[in-house]
Amino acid sequence: MSESEVVTKSKKAEQASRKLALVSTKVKNKALEEIGKALEGRAKEIIDANKIDLEAGEKKEISKSLFDRLALDGKRIKSMVDGLNVVKNLSDPVGEVLDEWTRPNGLKIKKVRVPLGVIAIIYEARPNVTVDAVGLCLKTGNATVLRGSSSAINSNIAIVKVMGEAAYNAGIPEGSIQLIEDTRHEAVNELLKLNKYIDVVIPRGSADLINMVVQNSTVPVIETGAGNCHLYVEKTADLKMATEITMNAKTSRPSVCNAIETLVVDEAIAEKFLPMVFKKLKEARVELRGDDKVRTIDKSVKAATEEDWKTEYCALILAVKVVSGIDEAIEHITKYGTKHTEAIITKDKEKAKKFTDEIDSVAVFVNASTRFTDGYEFGFGAEIGISTQKLHARGPMGLPELTSYKYVIHGDGQVRII
Amino acid sequence: MSESEVVTKSKKAEQASRKLALVSTKVKNKALEEIGKALEGRAKEIIDANKIDLEAGEKKEISKSLFDRLALDGKRIKSMVDGLNVVKNLSDPVGEVLDEWTRPNGLKIKKVRVPLGVIAIIYEARPNVTVDAVGLCLKTGNATVLRGSSSAINSNIAIVKVMGEAAYNAGIPEGSIQLIEDTRHEAVNELLKLNKYIDVVIPRGSADLINMVVQNSTVPVIETGAGNCHLYVEKTADLKMATEITMNAKTSRPSVCNAIETLVVDEAIAEKFLPMVFKKLKEARVELRGDDKVRTIDKSVKAATEEDWKTEYCALILAVKVVSGIDEAIEHITKYGTKHTEAIITKDKEKAKKFTDEIDSVAVFVNASTRFTDGYEFGFGAEIGISTQKLHARGPMGLPELTSYKYVIHGDGQVRII
Repeated sequence: MSESEVVTKSKKAEQASRKLALVSTKVKNKALEEIGKALEGRAKEIIDANKIDLEAGEKKEISKSLFDRLALDGKRIKSMVDGLNVVKNLSDPVGEVLDEWTRPNGLKIKKVRVPLGVIAIIYEARPNVTVDAVGLCLKTGNATVLRGSSSAINSNIAIVKVMGEAAYNAGIPEGSIQLIEDTRHEAVNELLKLNKYIDVVIPRGSADLINMVVQNSTVPVIETGAGNCHLYVEKTADLKMATEITMNAKTSRPSVCNAIETLVVDEAIAEKFLPMVFKKLKEARVELRGDDKVRTIDKSVKAATEEDWKTEYCALILAVKVVSGIDEAIEHITKYGTKHTEAIITKDKEKAKKFTDEIDSVAVFVNASTRFTDGYEFGFGAEIGISTQKLHARGPMGLPELTSYKYVIHGDGQVRII
Repeated sequence: MSESEVVTKSKKAEQASRKLALVSTKVKNKALEEIGKALEGRAKEIIDANKIDLEAGEKKEISKSLFDRLALDGKRIKSMVDGLNVVKNLSDPVGEVLDEWTRPNGLKIKKVRVPLGVIAIIYEARPNVTVDAVGLCLKTGNATVLRGSSSAINSNIAIVKVMGEAAYNAGIPEGSIQLIEDTRHEAVNELLKLNKYIDVVIPRGSADLINMVVQNSTVPVIETGAGNCHLYVEKTADLKMATEITMNAKTSRPSVCNAIETLVVDEAIAEKFLPMVFKKLKEARVELRGDDKVRTIDKSVKAATEEDWKTEYCALILAVKVVSGIDEAIEHITKYGTKHTEAIITKDKEKAKKFTDEIDSVAVFVNASTRFTDGYEFGFGAEIGISTQKLHARGPMGLPELTSYKYVIHGDGQVRII
């Protein structure tokens, strides 16, 4: 039986990764620059391929928002290239000596940062992920195996062709960027079992996609994504600040993972605060769903069900819960949250400490919007996603999170006695 | 349907883990001390339970080495207690501020070390793993779900009873230490799917056990173990040093993962070096298996097969290969190695650099024995295993490797503009 595309390309990526790990920062930066030039210079090729995907999408009657995420034009390509330049200007973590010490027996131990090796990215419609992911992986000396969705296949083939050629011409080992063109579901399942060639899988996309990867992968996974985030307004909160942060966290970009889904409010201030914030939320056309106490204060609010507390709406809907105090707030968040991002609005330092200590989330904010959980906002310069697991990387993942390390030890003949 | 033991205990561990994460270093250290006292004070209980396992083992005609690993006596219990005291005296990584910075918008970001949460340990016969693992996890604020083998079930039940009671009396939250008593295979499979309650699984034992866990777990795994380690004697090597290191790396403890399985020798020195080292190896009753070039030099050496290059013997057997130089050596090691530990003996600094750069293993030694890949020898004070994957932790895992981190961010009303 002949080898499948998935195996052939993963094997090539693995072979390339060993050489890529040794490529200098200078060459990698030059390659990022050349890839950028090629993407702009060959924009027509990419846009033409994208048109095929868009036409196919129209026939399949994909949603307007999916169509929009899929569409490429000169401006979007320019923005992808800008992203590559940002990555180019970040410092290269590979080769960094993380720690260094000498043992009593004279062994000199160095802990040195190295690439992870081969990173597989499994993602959905947006073709800009292709450019982003390759840029970040290339800078950190990692080979990539990409698997985009069938709806973007022609765009992705064109983008990877342009990127691969430009990278190779700039001195990047052949085979460092691989795209799986097999759009069957089986191809993903095959990829997820290739522990021999792939060091880590990062899924980017819907909760269903991420869950499918977690359920089926024997390759280590970095989970990204799901965010059922909460804002808790404690009774000592500055209510004007609480209102502004609620509005920002819910309405500035409701579709993203760091937007809030549930507002939790102390009983002591509910009668004063809820009418204030509901007025603004209603003006912004946010649908409200509340518990009984909320509905006593505002009868126009729909009743929240058990399902509402669990849901990441990604839309202009907000669940609202009134609690007796911080213990009930923490209990509710722990029960229903996804450990992504939570915030407390308070003037009480002890309550703030209790909240940041006891809430087990990637990011816990005091008196600021949840929307700041993001690699750029954290100052990482770029991010490949937000990890919601505790292993390896937690939260926004920048360049260092795409690396591992090894120990290099120098001796002069030491042997171990026991 | 009633809940299974695995679900009930994992859920309890998850609930306990939230409280345990907040327990002070002082209380955790006190608990380690009290557990140690209880293990010694109640040694008879444990040894009696161990006798039941040993008798069952005799009936099943288990191997002498398995019987030996299973057996507990006062001395072994003392040694487990000594291990707990070592852990007690190590500094607590939880709460450490790993990084801290202020963003231009005034947000103050702190990256704080936190426990992983719930760690499941799946392991084989040795009951001392129970004590080791619980000690390390407790010190790092992690709850544990233990699943030992059926051959040690009575010993493990007794040990966990003693440890759990002593821990609880010292102020550790109830439920922090859980032992799965269901010895059916299905219980492990169930445990490996409990992403909701378990943060990470660490398998400790045979390659088969580790592989089973990797293949079946949807919970993130830290792979430990397999070591097909190589020693490469480059042509400029000090041959006396090379001989001593070969002997140490092969014969000092052939059953462990950092012992070598293949000796790789430059052609230019093979005729001089091989007779020297073979004499010593034969005296130590090491069985030799070589390629054609080796057998030209020493006809008494058995022919090595393809299988030999791949095998972790864990026994007094050594495969020997002659190579044309460093490139072929690296190629061989890359093809057959398990990325655990490799060493080069050389006086040539450039060759040493090439070897440490290009060999993609957990630990790469220059002029020292591979046997030093070990948490104690690295100075970590303790280890829960040696990770052979690149994600999260690589190499010997001490206390910091049993932690994650979270971001705690303080603001004064910041909202995100875009």
